[in-house]
Amino acid sequence: MPVSALDYARAHGDAYLQTLDAFLRIPSISTLPESAPDMQRAAAWLADHMRRIGLQNVTISPTAGHPVVYGEWLGAGPTAPTLLVYGHYDVQPVDPLERWQSPPFEPTVRGEYLYSRGVSDDKGQLFMVLAAVESYLCSEGRLPINIKIMAEGEEEIGSPHLTAWVRQERERLACDAVLICDSAMLDARTPLISYGTRGLTYMEVTVYGPANDLHSGTFGGVVDNPLNVLVRILARLQEGTTHRVTIPGFYDRVRPLNEEERALLRRVPMDEETIRRLTGVPAPAGEEEFTWLECGTVRPTLDIHGIRGGFTGEGSKTVIPSVATAKVSMRLVPDQDPDEIARLFTNYVYHLAPDTVRVAVRTLNLARPSVVDLRAPAIRAAAQALTLGFGVEPLYMREGGTLPIIPDFQETLTTDVVLMGFGLRDDNVHAPNERFYLPNFHRGIETLIHFFHLLGKG
Amino acid sequence: MPVSALDYARAHGDAYLQTLDAFLRIPSISTLPESAPDMQRAAAWLADHMRRIGLQNVTISPTAGHPVVYGEWLGAGPTAPTLLVYGHYDVQPVDPLERWQSPPFEPTVRGEYLYSRGVSDDKGQLFMVLAAVESYLCSEGRLPINIKIMAEGEEEIGSPHLTAWVRQERERLACDAVLICDSAMLDARTPLISYGTRGLTYMEVTVYGPANDLHSGTFGGVVDNPLNVLVRILARLQEGTTHRVTIPGFYDRVRPLNEEERALLRRVPMDEETIRRLTGVPAPAGEEEFTWLECGTVRPTLDIHGIRGGFTGEGSKTVIPSVATAKVSMRLVPDQDPDEIARLFTNYVYHLAPDTVRVAVRTLNLARPSVVDLRAPAIRAAAQALTLGFGVEPLYMREGGTLPIIPDFQETLTTDVVLMGFGLRDDNVHAPNERFYLPNFHRGIETLIHFFHLLGKG
Repeated sequence: MPVSALDYARAHGDAYLQTLDAFLRIPSISTLPESAPDMQRAAAWLADHMRRIGLQNVTISPTAGHPVVYGEWLGAGPTAPTLLVYGHYDVQPVDPLERWQSPPFEPTVRGEYLYSRGVSDDKGQLFMVLAAVESYLCSEGRLPINIKIMAEGEEEIGSPHLTAWVRQERERLACDAVLICDSAMLDARTPLISYGTRGLTYMEVTVYGPANDLHSGTFGGVVDNPLNVLVRILARLQEGTTHRVTIPGFYDRVRPLNEEERALLRRVPMDEETIRRLTGVPAPAGEEEFTWLECGTVRPTLDIHGIRGGFTGEGSKTVIPSVATAKVSMRLVPDQDPDEIARLFTNYVYHLAPDTVRVAVRTLNLARPSVVDLRAPAIRAAAQALTLGFGVEPLYMREGGTLPIIPDFQETLTTDVVLMGFGLRDDNVHAPNERFYLPNFHRGIETLIHFFHLLGKG
Repeated sequence: MPVSALDYARAHGDAYLQTLDAFLRIPSISTLPESAPDMQRAAAWLADHMRRIGLQNVTISPTAGHPVVYGEWLGAGPTAPTLLVYGHYDVQPVDPLERWQSPPFEPTVRGEYLYSRGVSDDKGQLFMVLAAVESYLCSEGRLPINIKIMAEGEEEIGSPHLTAWVRQERERLACDAVLICDSAMLDARTPLISYGTRGLTYMEVTVYGPANDLHSGTFGGVVDNPLNVLVRILARLQEGTTHRVTIPGFYDRVRPLNEEERALLRRVPMDEETIRRLTGVPAPAGEEEFTWLECGTVRPTLDIHGIRGGFTGEGSKTVIPSVATAKVSMRLVPDQDPDEIARLFTNYVYHLAPDTVRVAVRTLNLARPSVVDLRAPAIRAAAQALTLGFGVEPLYMREGGTLPIIPDFQETLTTDVVLMGFGLRDDNVHAPNERFYLPNFHRGIETLIHFFHLLGKG
């Protein structure tokens, strides 16, 4: 047991929160051009903090967008394992601001929660890793492993420059495992190891009809309304009652779940009532042959995100729009290929399009799915660390969301990736009143201290 | 032949255009609250003009909205027929302003067209009726008929107060026929008598899913996306290839076309090429068993006007919206009942709604269809007048659009309605660069002079 590091962490829990406060106060909203100076401030704060706690070779690497902050401690020597930690210092926008109970960049404790934009996603969790490092370096003067920590500033805008940076820095980033603390536990008491993520193919379908908006009195019945056509096409992409995607070939590469994995997932409680409570829907919906958890994590989906065109204001304007556009994305699972799915989607949409309109399909975003071998040593170390930190063995599931960088880490660095998050599902990430459950801030730091220790023992 | 009135009109064509200029310059946009003073100015100008040309008992009648301007000349005596003319002095908004080649409220002649908002719809055509009246009163000192002229200021916002006003004023408005000059000819040389209009049932469907917008990574596949559900429901309202509306009972009251009417409509040329040219669509679309003209005028339709919910900006936000709303209208034909259609639509949508969401249906607007007996004396007089005015016999068709006041006139005043318009189909009404074909301004006034004369002869 890493007694002195744990003791140090316990003695400095409040001090850590005070230091985090300064980090959270910087409104590093990556999507807002006017936030550029704040992005620089956040990167500088992080680099300073890394140096202060004893990391070495700290750099702020420029990219075509916001910089990547990097620091390392390699004193464990070449025979000790090397862990690369990935996090991000940028945060989501805060609107609607009026729905925040306390200002988003004035961290405030209410009950057992600390409220602030970024406290869960991901400044707080990134800081916890640094706190675990600090606990070792300030108590024992060393870490049981070599550690490399990188934090980007563009996660919330799709990490447009990260893949290139990771490839370019592949030697500096060489490691035995990657740790990402940017996800949630199952609930406040139940730790979770996420062993995979879904990919994404995000498309835009545009239907061009008349040259200009028309009056539905004058031309209704004689021209195909681009919105009617779009709706007909979109409705044919998914079977209504079974929720199966009908794009030919869509499921061809979906790796079937083996019994071992199904058994593992069955241990994760996710019933109808839980989904109702988490989302507010009258009833969940999904593919019949799969559990709710499977539908939300290991099965591909198709979601319409918005339809533009015509009139959506108050009242009753009778327009036949000249153009109608839909945004549609599909979450993908191993071994679906986002490029191939984009192609299949495009071909099928063209196939469905009548010759009364012109249809254009555009690819907006592609991200590969990932899955991690649960037998990897780093995963086993994480499981033990979580058991020590929370007093409960972790459950295992794949994430429904997308982390495009994971396949890049797996390929570029040929390494395993541990997704071990300390947030909660109702932390309001990407929403007003983002928060973090404080008891797990401390338990999480202790878990990370255990993790480093177990990883070092091999 | 009403020689002196015709001579007067020919001699004063330019003067009429100059007078009209002042009317067109008043930006009487009924939908804009800030235009209220301009609406008053337009009503006052119109009332003054009516008095100036010799109409009597001119009033500006207040309503709960914009006023109705009324004037009459009853000097033809109780045995002569009485014609009620309906027009409107309000106009559509002008955005997008940047697409106007000359300012919308600075009437400008380019080529054979006069460009200005309202010049075709309907200030210009209303003014032509007044010019025909003026030509009689200033040349012969009398009209061959009694005439009552009413102009409302709320046509472009759905005439919310007109039915009540007509009912209230039913005695003042008593007449033998109603004339409406607010429509278009088939083309610049071919006059048209419109003997019916379509009705309207305008609905709004709202699908409520999760309590808040969700992230499609976290919940995609487990909850029914309100946009997906809405699209599935909307797609089932109409058969894609045949364009038939699938709402049970929708066609039950559609009065079949008799052979006489089909033959009449077949004389109106409306081929694929014309529709392509008028609208810019790659190909028209409609019910197979009907001609293009029939699809656009005597058959009911279903059009989606807009879908709200989720994200339609630039980029690729992966939101599952909490709420999605569609605006849908159906054009109706005799003897469909807008109320009944609203009920059928509502029931069917509820029937299609899955229990994974909540669905609400709202009625936004209802208007009855109309049809006029072609054997009515006023229609016959109009046909003769058009033949004299344009040198070509008119064709007959029903309008695809809606004029809710027609059934009210038919019922409240138990009268025939003549829809004789002098605009063109490409006048850009409701769009930038609204215009009027000047040669038909003069031919139209002469036609109206003939019409009054023929009506007076009985």
